Amino acid sequence: MRNLLFKISYHGGAYHGFQVQKNAVAVQQVLQDGIEKVFGRREDIIGCSRTDTGVHANAYYFNMHTDSAIPCSGAVRGLNTVLPEDIAILSCTEVAEDFHARYCVREKEYIYKIWNAAVRNPFWNGLAYWHRYPLDAEKMRRACIPFIGEHDFRGFCSKGSDVEDTIRRITEMDVERNGDLLVIRVRGDGFLYNMVRIIVGTLLYVEQGKISCADLPEIIASGDRRRAGKTAPACGLYLNQVFYE
Amino acid sequence: MRNLLFKISYHGGAYHGFQVQKNAVAVQQVLQDGIEKVFGRREDIIGCSRTDTGVHANAYYFNMHTDSAIPCSGAVRGLNTVLPEDIAILSCTEVAEDFHARYCVREKEYIYKIWNAAVRNPFWNGLAYWHRYPLDAEKMRRACIPFIGEHDFRGFCSKGSDVEDTIRRITEMDVERNGDLLVIRVRGDGFLYNMVRIIVGTLLYVEQGKISCADLPEIIASGDRRRAGKTAPACGLYLNQVFYE
Repeated sequence: MRNLLFKISYHGGAYHGFQVQKNAVAVQQVLQDGIEKVFGRREDIIGCSRTDTGVHANAYYFNMHTDSAIPCSGAVRGLNTVLPEDIAILSCTEVAEDFHARYCVREKEYIYKIWNAAVRNPFWNGLAYWHRYPLDAEKMRRACIPFIGEHDFRGFCSKGSDVEDTIRRITEMDVERNGDLLVIRVRGDGFLYNMVRIIVGTLLYVEQGKISCADLPEIIASGDRRRAGKTAPACGLYLNQVFYE
Repeated sequence: MRNLLFKISYHGGAYHGFQVQKNAVAVQQVLQDGIEKVFGRREDIIGCSRTDTGVHANAYYFNMHTDSAIPCSGAVRGLNTVLPEDIAILSCTEVAEDFHARYCVREKEYIYKIWNAAVRNPFWNGLAYWHRYPLDAEKMRRACIPFIGEHDFRGFCSKGSDVEDTIRRITEMDVERNGDLLVIRVRGDGFLYNMVRIIVGTLLYVEQGKISCADLPEIIASGDRRRAGKTAPACGLYLNQVFYE
């Protein structure tokens, strides 16, 4: 049996995340509908990550076991023809039969985009979070440091997650300004439910002086969700890269 | 009476151009509805340009005569509060009473964005025209040269325009590649109906060898719409800058 690994990108605005949901359209369901059209049968697919409602992906991976002989290039072309414009199949490669798009992930990188100008930008609607007051990128960059390394991030997790092990390692984190666009980049071995968005909200609180940068190590250690910042809006978040073993 | 000049930007995807139409929503109408809410009365506004259905604006200007004493900063803030997210008021300044947003235009600059990659990009949907085959930017750049200068552009104009004088001067025109994004920039003293989009379609024909670059001067001189390229899709076109006297 073949095991195909697909790399895709999608605009998450119209979807209730990746994973199939009752009463809501998820990316997974739209992909499986497309696969049924192209492959002539419905196949199960394994996504690399749950992503929340409205979150985007520059690079998302899923794998699929199939008996079909359709060549990879034909699968890419066929799926791009039948899928809606907000999902693009970037590539398809044949991988070892035991490759698992989720379990084999070593690290993931998210980016969070903030349109930081006094006036909103009609072209960034739904693609970045608009923050109208000037943000001090250097101050936010300093506030990244306490997050880097292995921590119990249970205070940076929304309710509704059933994960028991809340220890995660953040390997890289920084903030870059490109004109009026601020990009926060977080790379790590795994992320809890809403973790990146709560970290972004906490950086914003530090920037605004609502939280002192010096208190961050203790706030992280406390595991108390109430001491972190607000959950930043979904529209600014992108799954940007996935690193496999 | 005060004369206020507004600079705005808008995502044109939801609008049938700038100018008020029967049975279709235009940017002008949405602006006048917003002005009525903020100024407490309906005012006529004068736009710098008709723009086509679906065309975007990075910078568009309109002026408005009013007796209202609302300060410019308050007008900007108030309008941005009541207008939809796909329109942004960038600035408002008081100008001489005889200033006219259309008649006082000296030059305008349009840009046309092409997403040039084998696979579509979900984040450029509606914001760039997707062309899947690799485009030779240098070849397109050479094809710009015959357009520069004063010409009778009646062959680069769609039906439905009632303009009699079809002579226009293009002062600058070039093509730049930035990764998978190709940007065509055209600056001139005025543009006929669909003129930029037909010029872009003609550059694409030259790139594909359907028109020889050497024939362009004669094709322009012929005034024959059928000898030019197709009208490129509206979603790639942006009014980018307006230069006043």
